[in-house]
Amino acid sequence: MSTVVDALIGNVFAATRENRSGELADYIPELAAVAPDSFGICIATVDGYVYEVGDTRLPFTIQSISKPFTYALALADRGSAAVAEKIDVEPSGEPFNEISLDPRTERPRNPMINAGAITAASLVAGPDLDTRFERIRATYSRYAGRDLTFNRSVYESESRTGHRNRAIGHMLRSFDIITGDPDEAVDLYFRQCSIDVTCRDLSVMAATMANNGVNPVTRETVLEPALVERVLSVMSTCGMYDAAGKWVYEVGLPAKSGVGGGIIAVLPGQIGIAVYSPRLDEHGNSVRGVEACRALSAELELHFLHVTRAARSAIRASYSVVDSPSRMRRTPAERAALDDVGKRSRIYELHGDLLFAGAESAVREIGGVETELEVVVVDVRRVDDVGGIAGRMLDSLRDELTRRGCAVALVDPAGMLGYTHSDLSGTSGRVFADLEAALQWSEDTLLDRHCAALRQPAAIDVAQHPVLAGLRPEQLRRLTRDFDIRTFARDEQIIHRGDKACGLFLILSGRVSMRVADSGGAVYRIMTLSTGMTFGEMTMLLDLRFLNDVCADSEVTVAVLPADRYADMAATEPGLKLALLERLAAGAYEQLDVMLRSLLRP
Amino acid sequence: MSTVVDALIGNVFAATRENRSGELADYIPELAAVAPDSFGICIATVDGYVYEVGDTRLPFTIQSISKPFTYALALADRGSAAVAEKIDVEPSGEPFNEISLDPRTERPRNPMINAGAITAASLVAGPDLDTRFERIRATYSRYAGRDLTFNRSVYESESRTGHRNRAIGHMLRSFDIITGDPDEAVDLYFRQCSIDVTCRDLSVMAATMANNGVNPVTRETVLEPALVERVLSVMSTCGMYDAAGKWVYEVGLPAKSGVGGGIIAVLPGQIGIAVYSPRLDEHGNSVRGVEACRALSAELELHFLHVTRAARSAIRASYSVVDSPSRMRRTPAERAALDDVGKRSRIYELHGDLLFAGAESAVREIGGVETELEVVVVDVRRVDDVGGIAGRMLDSLRDELTRRGCAVALVDPAGMLGYTHSDLSGTSGRVFADLEAALQWSEDTLLDRHCAALRQPAAIDVAQHPVLAGLRPEQLRRLTRDFDIRTFARDEQIIHRGDKACGLFLILSGRVSMRVADSGGAVYRIMTLSTGMTFGEMTMLLDLRFLNDVCADSEVTVAVLPADRYADMAATEPGLKLALLERLAAGAYEQLDVMLRSLLRP
Repeated sequence: MSTVVDALIGNVFAATRENRSGELADYIPELAAVAPDSFGICIATVDGYVYEVGDTRLPFTIQSISKPFTYALALADRGSAAVAEKIDVEPSGEPFNEISLDPRTERPRNPMINAGAITAASLVAGPDLDTRFERIRATYSRYAGRDLTFNRSVYESESRTGHRNRAIGHMLRSFDIITGDPDEAVDLYFRQCSIDVTCRDLSVMAATMANNGVNPVTRETVLEPALVERVLSVMSTCGMYDAAGKWVYEVGLPAKSGVGGGIIAVLPGQIGIAVYSPRLDEHGNSVRGVEACRALSAELELHFLHVTRAARSAIRASYSVVDSPSRMRRTPAERAALDDVGKRSRIYELHGDLLFAGAESAVREIGGVETELEVVVVDVRRVDDVGGIAGRMLDSLRDELTRRGCAVALVDPAGMLGYTHSDLSGTSGRVFADLEAALQWSEDTLLDRHCAALRQPAAIDVAQHPVLAGLRPEQLRRLTRDFDIRTFARDEQIIHRGDKACGLFLILSGRVSMRVADSGGAVYRIMTLSTGMTFGEMTMLLDLRFLNDVCADSEVTVAVLPADRYADMAATEPGLKLALLERLAAGAYEQLDVMLRSLLRP
Repeated sequence: MSTVVDALIGNVFAATRENRSGELADYIPELAAVAPDSFGICIATVDGYVYEVGDTRLPFTIQSISKPFTYALALADRGSAAVAEKIDVEPSGEPFNEISLDPRTERPRNPMINAGAITAASLVAGPDLDTRFERIRATYSRYAGRDLTFNRSVYESESRTGHRNRAIGHMLRSFDIITGDPDEAVDLYFRQCSIDVTCRDLSVMAATMANNGVNPVTRETVLEPALVERVLSVMSTCGMYDAAGKWVYEVGLPAKSGVGGGIIAVLPGQIGIAVYSPRLDEHGNSVRGVEACRALSAELELHFLHVTRAARSAIRASYSVVDSPSRMRRTPAERAALDDVGKRSRIYELHGDLLFAGAESAVREIGGVETELEVVVVDVRRVDDVGGIAGRMLDSLRDELTRRGCAVALVDPAGMLGYTHSDLSGTSGRVFADLEAALQWSEDTLLDRHCAALRQPAAIDVAQHPVLAGLRPEQLRRLTRDFDIRTFARDEQIIHRGDKACGLFLILSGRVSMRVADSGGAVYRIMTLSTGMTFGEMTMLLDLRFLNDVCADSEVTVAVLPADRYADMAATEPGLKLALLERLAAGAYEQLDVMLRSLLRP
């Protein structure tokens, strides 16, 4: 196991441990009874790995760190609009336990002060107090990925001494913010604050927020993404009480602390942090918790407004079928035509996360091309994520290009843009699972548009095969006699890698592909051959074994000249052998050339 | 030009234009005299493109939007610590023009309220008022990318009626927050507020913040990145006065508004937004400005806490030299050895932005491998950016692997990790410009460690060449006579693509590479050959032209059997020809096989 990250966290831990300032919360005996120098740091990643240093498995009560989680539950239960009528989202310049509402709005200023948190608890749905608390406990447990337990003695102490919160409850009732029994809402709040967690639990809860509401360990969805954004927003501006501005300035992570000594911080999309150390500062925040978060943010560069570089273009590469031809073997006439019109195609390879800015740069470049593009392929295989807006922008771009007469296709094997794959027919709106198929389609589209007359017929006779063109009539008669006609079904394997040379194959109809498999069994298509092409000649001429499989991509008819008949012919008609050899050598050369060009594909 | 993004912004513009509520600022006649329904929206990208809709070229005074820019200048002039002694960074629940300080700290609560902004102006360095103002004006101009002008009549009106700000100035002086002449600080503040800008200017100023302090149009660095983060933090929590919490909740972009009717919003790393519409709400924010920002954030998914997906592993692919051999042709013995020990190498291909979380996942996986890895290559060619922390983490990983006896190399042609390229000698800490060189080094390292005895000597005689092994002594004597010995200097071209077959080449010492150039002139190395290998045989046997260049990678000695002598020999000694042919065919086969495997490289 690598110790690199452990060492980084360990350094922060060691430096912060020196700080023994601050006092334990002492308003109830249970909080004053903990070991004052306990200290733990956890960082949970969004793939569910948890780094732990120190006292990370010690239980303590969640206290105010419960507030964002109950607020999230209220938002899910009642909807954002209904909750907004009861609780504002403005930072408060006042202490967390102030018995007052915003004088202008007559609402609690935010859900992170007690008045707002008690209101949020009152909004949790359920027929009775016990059911509602059980929903809260079960929800927190889903964030933590394990069953969290209730600490009855802390609850009873809180309940006995919580006059200030009861005062807040009645104030809320008098302003009709709470419409039910205020004591019950306050009781529910006391219970939620009395749930036991460990530092490790809190880090996973924070990582669930970082992971867009999906618990990274259990993979369970606990909160929908739109609400995660809302809760993190409130944690950003209101999470650290009246030190919120300094917190954003210095740490820059949505966070929440509790008088139990815990603190959580969330870097959206990346990590959840939790620190436990029960000595508190004058704001009621863990002294070491604040210091460790500040150090981790600085050391690990976690500030959420940290920009390391300018956004880059979402376009990684762009090229035409001239720069990177398909592995479809073409006739010399087709190849010449493509050398001429191939520049009217363009393949754009996108990469990275396509959010607005990335999609904007792609749409601007692709849509801004002034030349007479006729075929556009957008390859999103290297795109990591497509935001909703980016998908809509690419749709609009496709419509725009289609209106201009451009055939447009996607390479999108993972279906990132939400379209299903379709076959090779048709001329626009195609979605391909691999680039090779898209390149073939690009070439076919251009050939169909510009030189349909040049194209090889779908099926030919042996005598019409180009490799035999130019033979004298009697040579042709002599030779065609020696060919066997064979038919293969779609997906049938014609030749296996390692087979001995077994003849010269002339394709009379259909398509075959030359394929190889890598050590993991993945199959790669080296070249596609169609009507009028040949295979097997190199192997036969050099008497080698096949280096690749040959498979039928469609129903295929071939004419085969077996090796023994070729040898006979070579012995009896050296002139015919020479004529054939010249053509085959030229074909082999062209084939190698295409292979080399495909090697160069960006 | 694509209309996709224009349409998106145009929709927001059209919907927002319907809103005619709000009142013009009327505390000075100039502000009340503007066309009340003027409306413009600009979005500037971090590559310097500006989308514009509506009245985007109309000048108006910057007013309070000046505050973050002067605060930034004060931070740059005096340092963060000195500024923090004078101005706090906490959101204020009070109106922007409150004549009061925080009672606890006796400082202005933040630089976005007037008291903080006047203090920031007082901290701008310069020998006298005019020089200091000129520094401010010139700085704003660098953000805007054009020379901004001073609106004297607005300034004179502000100055005439600005008693409240003068009161704030004297209050600041009485608390020693301002140590110089308070009237001068207030005057400087009035002047900075009276600089004319357009909506387009503001979008570029915002995009400069988004672009980490570099003006995306002029490419000039206006503010250092660490300060950008600070200023954006304060804009996040304090930029929209007492509606800051709701702003973060609903819009989620660091922003600043001014009573002139302007508003800017910044999405770090991505875009700068500016809206101009002079009707104001009760907070003094542009009514349409707020509405347009809210709509743009929602439509274009710009909330800064928006997470579209979980972070992914920074490792895009990993494989060994068995899965993906180098294009260095190996002797059969070396090939067999590599098939055996090649699994002890691993090439890790990283991608995306390497910030803490990405580097963490990479370090965890690479450092966590339990097998006996002996060679590790980290390929960062697809990495877009490396944060400082990520670079330090990869350094630590390299140290850790080296301690475990692992040879470690980087593929880093762009020098992202700050190391310079080095040659192929040595066994650890290598940095390569391309993957192929790193693969060759990986194989060489394993071969040197495990089977040094098998390795081909650096130089051999013709008679020792493996292709001639097994010939009878008289055959060998007959044949070696026909070879010419030739020497090539490093980088000398031995064969050009298109050359006619010119013989069989046996390499006696040094390395040659087979290369092809793409249509853009970029050169690709297909295969590297060394002592004991051959080339030219396929071309000669099939009487083709060369498909690739062959170049000397070092000083090279070859034995050449010219085509005519081969033909003579074939005619007079068919047995010798056959023996040679068998060996050449086997070699050609192996060579094609390596080419196919390199085709499959991930």
